[in-house]
Amino acid sequence: MSTNELIQKGEKAKQAASLLAKKTTKQKNDALKLISIQLIEEKEFILAENKKDLTAGQQNGMSESMLDRLKLDEASLKEMANAVMSLTLLKDPVGEMIEQWQRPNGLLISQIRVPLGVIGMIYEARPNVTVDASSLCLKTGNSVLLRGSSTAIRSNKAIVRVIHRALEKSELPAEAVQLVEDTGRQTASEMFKLNRYLDVLIPRGGAKLIKTVVENSTVPVLETGAGNCHVFIDESAGKEMAINIAVNAKTQRPSVCNACETILVHENWAAMHLQELVEILQDKGVTIHGDGRVPGNKIIPATKEDWATEFLGLEVAIKVVGSTDEAISHINLYGTKHSEAIVSSNSENVNKFFNEVDAAAVYHNASTRFTDGFEFGFGAEIGISTQKLHARGPMGLPALTSTKYIINGNGQVK
Amino acid sequence: MSTNELIQKGEKAKQAASLLAKKTTKQKNDALKLISIQLIEEKEFILAENKKDLTAGQQNGMSESMLDRLKLDEASLKEMANAVMSLTLLKDPVGEMIEQWQRPNGLLISQIRVPLGVIGMIYEARPNVTVDASSLCLKTGNSVLLRGSSTAIRSNKAIVRVIHRALEKSELPAEAVQLVEDTGRQTASEMFKLNRYLDVLIPRGGAKLIKTVVENSTVPVLETGAGNCHVFIDESAGKEMAINIAVNAKTQRPSVCNACETILVHENWAAMHLQELVEILQDKGVTIHGDGRVPGNKIIPATKEDWATEFLGLEVAIKVVGSTDEAISHINLYGTKHSEAIVSSNSENVNKFFNEVDAAAVYHNASTRFTDGFEFGFGAEIGISTQKLHARGPMGLPALTSTKYIINGNGQVK
Repeated sequence: MSTNELIQKGEKAKQAASLLAKKTTKQKNDALKLISIQLIEEKEFILAENKKDLTAGQQNGMSESMLDRLKLDEASLKEMANAVMSLTLLKDPVGEMIEQWQRPNGLLISQIRVPLGVIGMIYEARPNVTVDASSLCLKTGNSVLLRGSSTAIRSNKAIVRVIHRALEKSELPAEAVQLVEDTGRQTASEMFKLNRYLDVLIPRGGAKLIKTVVENSTVPVLETGAGNCHVFIDESAGKEMAINIAVNAKTQRPSVCNACETILVHENWAAMHLQELVEILQDKGVTIHGDGRVPGNKIIPATKEDWATEFLGLEVAIKVVGSTDEAISHINLYGTKHSEAIVSSNSENVNKFFNEVDAAAVYHNASTRFTDGFEFGFGAEIGISTQKLHARGPMGLPALTSTKYIINGNGQVK
Repeated sequence: MSTNELIQKGEKAKQAASLLAKKTTKQKNDALKLISIQLIEEKEFILAENKKDLTAGQQNGMSESMLDRLKLDEASLKEMANAVMSLTLLKDPVGEMIEQWQRPNGLLISQIRVPLGVIGMIYEARPNVTVDASSLCLKTGNSVLLRGSSTAIRSNKAIVRVIHRALEKSELPAEAVQLVEDTGRQTASEMFKLNRYLDVLIPRGGAKLIKTVVENSTVPVLETGAGNCHVFIDESAGKEMAINIAVNAKTQRPSVCNACETILVHENWAAMHLQELVEILQDKGVTIHGDGRVPGNKIIPATKEDWATEFLGLEVAIKVVGSTDEAISHINLYGTKHSEAIVSSNSENVNKFFNEVDAAAVYHNASTRFTDGFEFGFGAEIGISTQKLHARGPMGLPALTSTKYIINGNGQVK
């Protein structure tokens, strides 16, 4: 049965995608405005359905943090509606000419941006992803097949119904947004292999979900997420800047993927200032897993596993290293290729770090917390890619597009 | 055992990749020159080993066309060596700055090209792919894990040994080129899941091989190949140009992926000129599968299967259509999103065709045969991508690269 649902909705999404590809920027923006308005108009309906999910979650013993992610209220709904509205202000990447050149035989070759087609989204209990993914896909001319979690199914169904009602007033096909209502495990597994209908699959959620999708999907995946990020304090780093950056990267919002999880400290800097850094971190409530050379009280001995852990909370691992090379080796062994920073005033070490650290974003004298589509100035963010194909780092709207060559001739044959 | 071989060679390739990423363009070009020279110096060795593969192939009843692809001789070896040498003249994409901008907070963000890492190649009995893939990967700073077919294993081992001897004289790590010597089916299946070591997998060969890789691989795939290409002759097309283009696209080299497989003809043009086109094609030895409206003798009635067939030989399907819309629908239903051409002097129809046909390359008044890295002016070709992620259409050296953001700050925190 689930198979039938996936095939039917995949087919509808695919058909809608070819209609959507022809729509103008204005038609797409008008539809986004209608969605934004409809979300507010039907807020009671959405919140009532969300309430049912919350009640069921409480009855099933869902954790507080999970309930928190699931919960919608007037403020969060308003925020979602505003985010949809703000997409209308962004440049439409579709149709953009990327390059154009003429060949000696007279052929004029243009490379232009086109939608990808149908985007599959697999995500956990955050109903805001339903709005977010739908609106980003519509803005870029793509259909979307949404598969959220069972715990948010009432909220997701309500939101998609509202989006459909808005799209019915618009010039876009309502069928461009499809929600898989069977939230059994099987429908996720089947989406991994839905190559016939899906051009790309984007998992949004915890490291485990992303790993499962990457390891099982034959549909091309845009991998986002896990960030075991490091700040390396070189011996030449100024005390104040190094402490500021390390403390900010760790504590400003520890639950996010671009927060710092391990601080690497050159031994000469450590001898002078590490104790102070440790104390400041501890004052902010940070638990420290240190190697044998980290000074201070209440240091938990760091294990190999700590180096590989994304704490996502007020915990950090600290390691004293003998050189930039040692820091780079550690990062390339344990990092997740997300965001890595060096604090240094030695340009040779900075260049070495930039060249040799394998990550989506490498920073000199700045916090890793800036790896973000909005901080980069993209105006929207699909996620932060930690893979190397297609898009790497914060992904803005162009990451949801492909390209096409159009070639004008006057009779050329080979 | 094969698992061990894959893990060992995957690990070596990965280690070599991080060394390779630091090498300069000159170091890479010098190594390519050494390989080119070594291929010629050791030609007797390579040809003798290739002879053994040929003898075994003959004994096992290999087809003439397969033997032909397997066969190396002095001329083809020279050609391979020249192709390696010519790569040294191409711009190194690695290190190229793609974009740079400054944020209001002072962060200077640069996006630069970096190697992908380790590239897996799965290919059939063409030993030239061994040289081709290795040299393209080295030029772009990538390691390569090669898995050719059992029927070419002696040739492949000889070529890789020669490449290794050249690399040992160079400043690049010889371990950057790894050949899987166990050519059992199992090693291919295991490569599909070798996410730990491979950043991308590129299949080179027939449609069946590519389909198997795409449908089973969890490593990101660069899909190349199958081309069910169309030429649509609009009612406004001039007779001579339309016939020239259709005949060229079909007959100039029918065995390649950018050759035309179905000609779509508007009914008004068909009424005037289709019989002449049919006769010219037949004079050139082309067998015609036509719908009921194709005039002439010896027309085989076209089946639904014919519309979906990549004949790759002197056979073509011809269909008479009532409109540009009908032509576009047919192409989007049966095409493989490779190369599609319209011959027309009606700009409205041309724009419709450009916008609505879903393919890597769409042509106006030119043969589909130009979809090729060399014809596009890229100087090299990894293959022609028919997928939408990462790269679409002819792929030059940049398709074997990823990007990295490097961000310079002066103490910014969030």
